[in-house]
Amino acid sequence: MLLHHSTWQEIDAYLTRSKAIIIPIGSTEQHGPNGLIGTDALCPEIISHEAQKDADMLVGPTFNVGCAQHHLGFAGSMTLRPSTMIAAIHDWVSSLAVHGFERVLFFNGHGGNIATINAAFSEIYADRSLAGDASNRGPVKCKLDNWWDYKPVMDMCMKTYGKSHGSHATPSEVAVTQWAYPDSIKQAEMSPQIAPNGRYTDAADYRAKFPDGRMGSDPSLATPEDGGKLVALSAKGLQESFAKFAAS
Amino acid sequence: MLLHHSTWQEIDAYLTRSKAIIIPIGSTEQHGPNGLIGTDALCPEIISHEAQKDADMLVGPTFNVGCAQHHLGFAGSMTLRPSTMIAAIHDWVSSLAVHGFERVLFFNGHGGNIATINAAFSEIYADRSLAGDASNRGPVKCKLDNWWDYKPVMDMCMKTYGKSHGSHATPSEVAVTQWAYPDSIKQAEMSPQIAPNGRYTDAADYRAKFPDGRMGSDPSLATPEDGGKLVALSAKGLQESFAKFAAS
Amino acid sequence: MLLHHSTWQEIDAYLTRSKAIIIPIGSTEQHGPNGLIGTDALCPEIISHEAQKDADMLVGPTFNVGCAQHHLGFAGSMTLRPSTMIAAIHDWVSSLAVHGFERVLFFNGHGGNIATINAAFSEIYADRSLAGDASNRGPVKCKLDNWWDYKPVMDMCMKTYGKSHGSHATPSEVAVTQWAYPDSIKQAEMSPQIAPNGRYTDAADYRAKFPDGRMGSDPSLATPEDGGKLVALSAKGLQESFAKFAAS
Amino acid sequence: MLLHHSTWQEIDAYLTRSKAIIIPIGSTEQHGPNGLIGTDALCPEIISHEAQKDADMLVGPTFNVGCAQHHLGFAGSMTLRPSTMIAAIHDWVSSLAVHGFERVLFFNGHGGNIATINAAFSEIYADRSLAGDASNRGPVKCKLDNWWDYKPVMDMCMKTYGKSHGSHATPSEVAVTQWAYPDSIKQAEMSPQIAPNGRYTDAADYRAKFPDGRMGSDPSLATPEDGGKLVALSAKGLQESFAKFAAS
Amino acid sequence: MLLHHSTWQEIDAYLTRSKAIIIPIGSTEQHGPNGLIGTDALCPEIISHEAQKDADMLVGPTFNVGCAQHHLGFAGSMTLRPSTMIAAIHDWVSSLAVHGFERVLFFNGHGGNIATINAAFSEIYADRSLAGDASNRGPVKCKLDNWWDYKPVMDMCMKTYGKSHGSHATPSEVAVTQWAYPDSIKQAEMSPQIAPNGRYTDAADYRAKFPDGRMGSDPSLATPEDGGKLVALSAKGLQESFAKFAAS
Amino acid sequence: MLLHHSTWQEIDAYLTRSKAIIIPIGSTEQHGPNGLIGTDALCPEIISHEAQKDADMLVGPTFNVGCAQHHLGFAGSMTLRPSTMIAAIHDWVSSLAVHGFERVLFFNGHGGNIATINAAFSEIYADRSLAGDASNRGPVKCKLDNWWDYKPVMDMCMKTYGKSHGSHATPSEVAVTQWAYPDSIKQAEMSPQIAPNGRYTDAADYRAKFPDGRMGSDPSLATPEDGGKLVALSAKGLQESFAKFAAS
Ligand code: NI
Ligand code: NI
Ligand code: NI
Ligand code: NI
Ligand code: NI
Ligand code: NI
Repeated sequence: MLLHHSTWQEIDAYLTRSKAIIIPIGSTEQHGPNGLIGTDALCPEIISHEAQKDADMLVGPTFNVGCAQHHLGFAGSMTLRPSTMIAAIHDWVSSLAVHGFERVLFFNGHGGNIATINAAFSEIYADRSLAGDASNRGPVKCKLDNWWDYKPVMDMCMKTYGKSHGSHATPSEVAVTQWAYPDSIKQAEMSPQIAPNGRYTDAADYRAKFPDGRMGSDPSLATPEDGGKLVALSAKGLQESFAKFAAS
Repeated sequence: MLLHHSTWQEIDAYLTRSKAIIIPIGSTEQHGPNGLIGTDALCPEIISHEAQKDADMLVGPTFNVGCAQHHLGFAGSMTLRPSTMIAAIHDWVSSLAVHGFERVLFFNGHGGNIATINAAFSEIYADRSLAGDASNRGPVKCKLDNWWDYKPVMDMCMKTYGKSHGSHATPSEVAVTQWAYPDSIKQAEMSPQIAPNGRYTDAADYRAKFPDGRMGSDPSLATPEDGGKLVALSAKGLQESFAKFAAS
Repeated sequence: MLLHHSTWQEIDAYLTRSKAIIIPIGSTEQHGPNGLIGTDALCPEIISHEAQKDADMLVGPTFNVGCAQHHLGFAGSMTLRPSTMIAAIHDWVSSLAVHGFERVLFFNGHGGNIATINAAFSEIYADRSLAGDASNRGPVKCKLDNWWDYKPVMDMCMKTYGKSHGSHATPSEVAVTQWAYPDSIKQAEMSPQIAPNGRYTDAADYRAKFPDGRMGSDPSLATPEDGGKLVALSAKGLQESFAKFAAS
Repeated sequence: MLLHHSTWQEIDAYLTRSKAIIIPIGSTEQHGPNGLIGTDALCPEIISHEAQKDADMLVGPTFNVGCAQHHLGFAGSMTLRPSTMIAAIHDWVSSLAVHGFERVLFFNGHGGNIATINAAFSEIYADRSLAGDASNRGPVKCKLDNWWDYKPVMDMCMKTYGKSHGSHATPSEVAVTQWAYPDSIKQAEMSPQIAPNGRYTDAADYRAKFPDGRMGSDPSLATPEDGGKLVALSAKGLQESFAKFAAS
Repeated sequence: MLLHHSTWQEIDAYLTRSKAIIIPIGSTEQHGPNGLIGTDALCPEIISHEAQKDADMLVGPTFNVGCAQHHLGFAGSMTLRPSTMIAAIHDWVSSLAVHGFERVLFFNGHGGNIATINAAFSEIYADRSLAGDASNRGPVKCKLDNWWDYKPVMDMCMKTYGKSHGSHATPSEVAVTQWAYPDSIKQAEMSPQIAPNGRYTDAADYRAKFPDGRMGSDPSLATPEDGGKLVALSAKGLQESFAKFAAS
Repeated sequence: MLLHHSTWQEIDAYLTRSKAIIIPIGSTEQHGPNGLIGTDALCPEIISHEAQKDADMLVGPTFNVGCAQHHLGFAGSMTLRPSTMIAAIHDWVSSLAVHGFERVLFFNGHGGNIATINAAFSEIYADRSLAGDASNRGPVKCKLDNWWDYKPVMDMCMKTYGKSHGSHATPSEVAVTQWAYPDSIKQAEMSPQIAPNGRYTDAADYRAKFPDGRMGSDPSLATPEDGGKLVALSAKGLQESFAKFAAS
């Protein structure tokens, strides 16, 4: 069930069955020579939309632009400052709390978002912790799942790509978008075949160290077929995680 | 051309041809008995994605949650505070400016966003106006188009729906989403047939005055066929407006 | 009745009769060769002070500096960032709500303020919409009237100045200040007689397009006599609008 | 010379003679049984406008609402949060700096503003101190003068009112507004004749300790004649202070 | 009793005896040729820790970095923007209020903090003043004491150092740190023997006027012995002030 | 070398040898029946101060209050909102950058800080990434080390405490403070011997699940002797990590 494709009466009805919702959250940033700029937002969107097809789950709008200041050296990358992202997540969750939602699962597609999403959770919880009983808003619990972190997904990544998986512009995330958007599959030579690894700070530093944008990966290994398998595995992980969280 | 479906190298190439980009921007809020909660985000997304199919236009990610505090009395509605929305739009445009984008057209689907989007433009311009020449960021021009404001679109709305068009949960916007998402067409009785009109302030006030969420409209008149026509008309309007803006 | 010229006991008494108040709001920005920098703040101040002379209306302090980043290319212009202006309007209205004011009419003298004032209203309403019943502050309704928007005022402007009215540094607003401050009437040649029209973004862009600061106007047509008539017409419009709003 | 009553060309000319400007700054808050709510904004406005009549001084718009949270227990009082006030003062000064103003004298009428105005100065200076040479904005120096702090003014207050002067709703400030606005002179019994003194925190605390709003004063001693003398003394003090500051 | 050296059960017990706490607050900034960069944080920490040894007083963590933008021209100086400092003090006090603390005495070591600390108090009080009764947080009273402001301390400073005391990098504050940290006593020639006095704005301005960082002082007069006496006098002042405040 | 115990001239000299600095960062929060409220700030302070005794390292002031909203159910706990903490860390690092520091190692004592510290790093880097070359501030690299994360430290914890180590109010952190502050060693029964484990959200939720504040630990195992060993191991880890980071 997609919030965007539902009426408010349908959400009223859903709330009698469940107080839980999923928010796909990602980033808009370069993903190397054959990865889409939307990869990190598209992956959780694709997987969560797939997951809700055969489970009673509500999926909200996709949070499209995240924390990606380090990718701004590459055209098309966009970022929020972390302080802006915290304010926005705060407002999204506060809105949902008005309706009685008590479990908000952020289904994430971007490693660079993790710190800020967790900081946003603390910002939200601090409202109640600092106010005592004054707020009429009920307690909301938030949870962060990365789409790749369910064990079967990680197992398949390691088994399929091994040392070519890397950490940015990975073959697995490219594969997921290839499966969902076959018309947007890109061909590109990788040079070197496996990108360098390392640490980075700001955008200039990142671009200097990772000239084509990849980190540690060979995304030319991606295939739409593997993408489909990853989607299925991750969707199943999300269904289980969501059910458990909703019942907690 | 969709930013989310492109690589950074493709955006580099696009920037040699054009410095302009479109950002679909909407809202996540109740749209009456048969309107989708995502209507205001979906409409500009649908139309802009259609428009870029036969024109050299770049469409960025959709800004999904806008200013909708007055709809929070209906389940599923979400809002940003205006101050949060200004910060987010500021960061989106600042990111694009880093890459050399100089024209950002916000293609809007929600009347309640207009004030805050314009305020955000002033916030962005103030960076340069207050700093003198110190900022290295080039001058960016922003523009706001509402998808329904092109003359042929408005003409069709008035001709097709007349007094039943109203101003929230209109048959035209419902029609657009029906055309794009036929599987999500909802059936609902409208009572009264045409919803009341009026002014409102906060969520409690809005709910008291507009019990099913509609304002002045009879969205049961919506058909996917008319939706398709509206999409075509608005997409053409957007192509022309964008071309003119890009060349300005 | 002027808040600034009253005691708190007089306001206590007023609140037993009415929960409504007017806030004149304007801008401090260049107004061409013969317009005063304070024009946009002075006009609503002049008119509202006139209006309260023969009606039971309370007028608060004037909000003197508004959104005028685009005028910063001309000496003496001042601006708030929209985010600052929203915070300030929020605090003004929150203060008034403490005393039981439930209707705040912002009487505006500057087109560039409209978006941000409306955004500020949403920011204020969002406090209640997001908090449910928790806030002890009662519901406040805000309204924005531009001094020139009452029909008889607009009619006189069009009839008296026609194509020479323009949109910034207009003869009508110059006339209003000439009537109120005859010692500050300025003489200046207009070249060209009618200033150019167009769109603008930041301060450098504005100055390049509108070299003497005017937009589309010939303010040399202003006379103190016409100013007096405009004040009378607008004051009457304000009295009617306020009475209706207070009773709503 | 009043900024609000000048054209931008006149300010351009002034800037060739001086880089200094005065901003009257006050508060909108109860002033006891016979003091006007606008007293703290009116006093610096009255005095600075008087001072500029026979000296080459530029006076900007009045900053009308200041830090007065402790007065919110009395009807009509208004406040900015200190953080809002800092942001607003920052924007006012930044705007003036764009035009080349290098000395901004805040001429203050409210003791409760002093801390926040000084904090705002540090906020402004921190822009340059933290940025090194990057900002193109020139260095601006800010100064705070309270209208009552010039020695001859204080001497007259002590000599005329002695122990009845107090610290809020003083006879001296009431006298200044009586001189300027004789039509708004209020008659009220003072009981006790001299109000209590003490410390306070929030609005409820203040109201409990100072039931009619006064602190330590007997403002029934105020006369418009003494007000005129105080205005003359303070205006002279301001002229000297401004000249010295402008030349520094 | 030190908060940092206590368990929560011990604080629970303390709260049955007293609702009052001390927060040492200072700055991290240059203190001339022989003064430690931590001087302004160390002094209130040293004195308050000494004071609590023979009195039932609770001392919280030291607020180490304050408002010192004007010292950024000297290596090692650190600052918060005043707006950041207000937010931080707000959060510290809000946290303490959750536990039932009702008196928070900020024991200050830096003149440059005074304005911002007082502004922060207003920011905190405004929460209640603007919210009416809605907040569940009880009323908190805050107080600011400078360690040097108790009369016996000031008397000793004047008597011991006279015209060599000055206002920054004073012999008294250097003496206090020498007594507490004898291993960190520095030797340095003072040239001129007594530093210049004056006003300052930003960091560049300060460095130009006060080349070695001192203002009006000759800190070579400092001795650890005098430091010990000053600590004793100020600790006694703090004990008395705290007792009175706690009982208020 | 301690920044707080140095003169600015000594920091000038240090900067000719190294551009790197350590900031101990912790939290002020309950640590169970025998843990000090200051534990998380004291541990990194103790260890870093120890480490700099025999290495050329500069240690700045301790950041005492961190992200601890979930501990506010226990008396004495204090928190910053994450947005406040980001602003403060931003200002600390910006200040250091003015002096030419290019490597800032945050040496952390609190797991709950990790997300927000990393978000703060992104906020800092975003200044440069969004501004292009405009800022005069040089590039700063930040790094986060937790005192317990060096392998020999973790090995000793696991070997010494095994399943009794837990994750909050651990015997290792209690041991470190016992070694440094033997006068503050507390005796308390643990019941149950090993505290429960689990996830938590806000303060009420945490208190309900962890009634005495501990998570998964038996801190009665702590001894000052083991504390001394842990300090030595962690100090060595910090020396190596700092040297590597400074040279990077
Ligand atoms: Ni990715
Ligand atoms: Ni709509
Ligand atoms: Ni105007
Ligand atoms: Ni006053
Ligand atoms: Ni000092
Ligand atoms: Ni700990």
